[in-house]
Amino acid sequence: MKATIITIGDEILIGQIVDTNSASIARHLNAAGIVVAEKESVGDDRDAIVAALRRAMDGSDVTILTGGLGPTKDDITKRTLAELFGCELVRDERVARHVRRMLESRGIAYNDLNRGQSLVPACCTVLFNAHGTAPGMWFERDGRVVVSLPGVPFEMEHLMQDEVMPRLKARFALRQIVHRTLITSGLAESMLAERIAGWEAALPPYLHLAYLPSPDKVRLRLSAYEVEGEEVAHEIEAQFEKLRTIIPEYILGYETATIQSVVHDLLTQRHLTLATAESCTGGAIAARFTAMPGASAYFRCGVVSYTVEAKHDLLGVSLDDIDRYGVVSEPVVRAMAEGMRRTAHADYAVATTGVAGPAGGTPECPVGTVWMAVAGPQGTVAVCRQSGSDRGQIIDRASGQAIALLRDEILRQDTPRNE
Amino acid sequence: MKATIITIGDEILIGQIVDTNSASIARHLNAAGIVVAEKESVGDDRDAIVAALRRAMDGSDVTILTGGLGPTKDDITKRTLAELFGCELVRDERVARHVRRMLESRGIAYNDLNRGQSLVPACCTVLFNAHGTAPGMWFERDGRVVVSLPGVPFEMEHLMQDEVMPRLKARFALRQIVHRTLITSGLAESMLAERIAGWEAALPPYLHLAYLPSPDKVRLRLSAYEVEGEEVAHEIEAQFEKLRTIIPEYILGYETATIQSVVHDLLTQRHLTLATAESCTGGAIAARFTAMPGASAYFRCGVVSYTVEAKHDLLGVSLDDIDRYGVVSEPVVRAMAEGMRRTAHADYAVATTGVAGPAGGTPECPVGTVWMAVAGPQGTVAVCRQSGSDRGQIIDRASGQAIALLRDEILRQDTPRNE
Repeated sequence: MKATIITIGDEILIGQIVDTNSASIARHLNAAGIVVAEKESVGDDRDAIVAALRRAMDGSDVTILTGGLGPTKDDITKRTLAELFGCELVRDERVARHVRRMLESRGIAYNDLNRGQSLVPACCTVLFNAHGTAPGMWFERDGRVVVSLPGVPFEMEHLMQDEVMPRLKARFALRQIVHRTLITSGLAESMLAERIAGWEAALPPYLHLAYLPSPDKVRLRLSAYEVEGEEVAHEIEAQFEKLRTIIPEYILGYETATIQSVVHDLLTQRHLTLATAESCTGGAIAARFTAMPGASAYFRCGVVSYTVEAKHDLLGVSLDDIDRYGVVSEPVVRAMAEGMRRTAHADYAVATTGVAGPAGGTPECPVGTVWMAVAGPQGTVAVCRQSGSDRGQIIDRASGQAIALLRDEILRQDTPRNE
Repeated sequence: MKATIITIGDEILIGQIVDTNSASIARHLNAAGIVVAEKESVGDDRDAIVAALRRAMDGSDVTILTGGLGPTKDDITKRTLAELFGCELVRDERVARHVRRMLESRGIAYNDLNRGQSLVPACCTVLFNAHGTAPGMWFERDGRVVVSLPGVPFEMEHLMQDEVMPRLKARFALRQIVHRTLITSGLAESMLAERIAGWEAALPPYLHLAYLPSPDKVRLRLSAYEVEGEEVAHEIEAQFEKLRTIIPEYILGYETATIQSVVHDLLTQRHLTLATAESCTGGAIAARFTAMPGASAYFRCGVVSYTVEAKHDLLGVSLDDIDRYGVVSEPVVRAMAEGMRRTAHADYAVATTGVAGPAGGTPECPVGTVWMAVAGPQGTVAVCRQSGSDRGQIIDRASGQAIALLRDEILRQDTPRNE
């Protein structure tokens, strides 16, 4: 079972938006055992849509299109599909009623543009879009399926899940695709590959290994195509277990694990509480934790102390220390963490102070220098890191590094003090 | 001048990563007047790469490939290119020296995998990758250019900017493409289209209008292809000025403006200071401001008060009020903003308290309910909003809504008090 994904929109070709829809559609298809052979993006242009669609239908059993629908621009895609499948545009009463009701509830007048949204090709099955005004459309010809979905990610996502996937599963006899990912951190790609070369060479031939490097981690993905899913999933887990014994200290987690999700789980399981005191990371650490459902069970509070006064008034950092050592220094970051932990009555407090740039760097303390500390039941640790050269990168990396320090401190609880 | 972008990697086809590279490459090409006709993604597979590349070279003057390089997987792409262009892989001494030096500085051993990275097709021009170990490659045949770049976004970006664009500009006589975007907020797409229909109909024929809707705004883009840039840019500005007179209250800004960048500019220009007191947004508002260079000029401090104690201890909210009205209430959000403004000695303080979910909703106060307040020199305003149904969406929307309230309050300074 092969699929092609076609995303439509000039905004994609000029780089004005990043296409997230195709990744999300690909995940849905893969999870159901449908291999995505190709993804393509074309502009709001009849000929380009027709050419892409013809080629897709030649090679793929299923083609999913998104975009090119909506009150101001749905003509091209809808008319092109009607023409390609040889039928007229007709008014769909259910869609018309739904559009009218949706707009009314939001206080929006129903006008000719919205009226046009209830026109659909007569030869398609309408996929009801409960969350928007542009309906999805399902076409079939010669055993091949073509689905057109609106480009608004939220609406597309609901239609894929509620309408498209159930129909595809009912329509085709699907085999499974299994992907599992293990996340490593702390080893460069080439060193990792060297370390695990023996393990890699001994993998069963139907398991395909891929390295996915990014600045602070390398993900290892094992994939198997068109297999009996459960058995293969067990085999992959067994292989990852072997890997755990080879590089135990470099494994961060599985699938979409992040350093904050690992710490979230640790804090939750152990009934520990957390507070944050951030200067250069500016709330990014607090935001990473509080973005996760369930954070309120352990997250007590955070302070973003951009000014000297805030460091003193809210965190109790001594003005003498700030004068003597500077705001980006070990004594200050330690005092921030300890002051926050005390004020919040939390088990752990994590603190950062650094130079996020682009201005403010000095020869002794260049842009990217970040002091980070964790105060906990066993005392306080502090480290200084060089976290990059670009403001966004520095905030992001320093946040990750500070949370990793927190993880290490929580896990250190497990080892005897006199190690 | 037409271009095709091909991104290579199984991780793209299974939806494990969102492809941001192609959007960034498209922006570079567009800015130089090169029209991107198509974008395509294929897997790490020789035949798929060859087929996509052959088709791209048929239709486009320039083809940019990314991905499929790196110590553990560069074989396929590099060998495929060498084969397609009919030459051998040879060792490049400069690349070899660079890879060795880069690894040494990071304390990484130089091994066979890295040694392989210094092999390049003999018929290409090597594009030096100062930020990584996989070099870029530039091929030419029959007047058509094919460029292969590593897939790490940071490395790709530097190579596009420093190596590829200067060479393309030197190699081809390019005309300009002009895109300008105006961002509206507060009008649904169909209502906006109706309001500005007269303006749209009167646009000069060489200006192409596109609507780009997203949950909280609609962007309007005017584009002109292969034109004399400066003149068209002025014409577009004049058109946007006309639009300003038609829908003045719905215009947020231009290009990549965000609600926080608008407020950032207001605060900076007026020498005003800001503090934040966040409950349900969990630091996201502080993080949005502090992510922008120059934020330290106005951002004083922020508190993330997830617990009742933090609301009381750090912000001075009365425990009686919390008991009587609940944490998600108008009296509490007002007290948070006012307490924060006082503690921080800031001109403005913005506060949020709400139910981000998925748990914690009640019939009176369902998930998505967010109270937000702004305390300023003219007093305090508070509003309650329904900000969505998904935790991430609620945090994101409520942050934007609270910052919009702050903007309105700052701008209200300009109007007489007795309006």
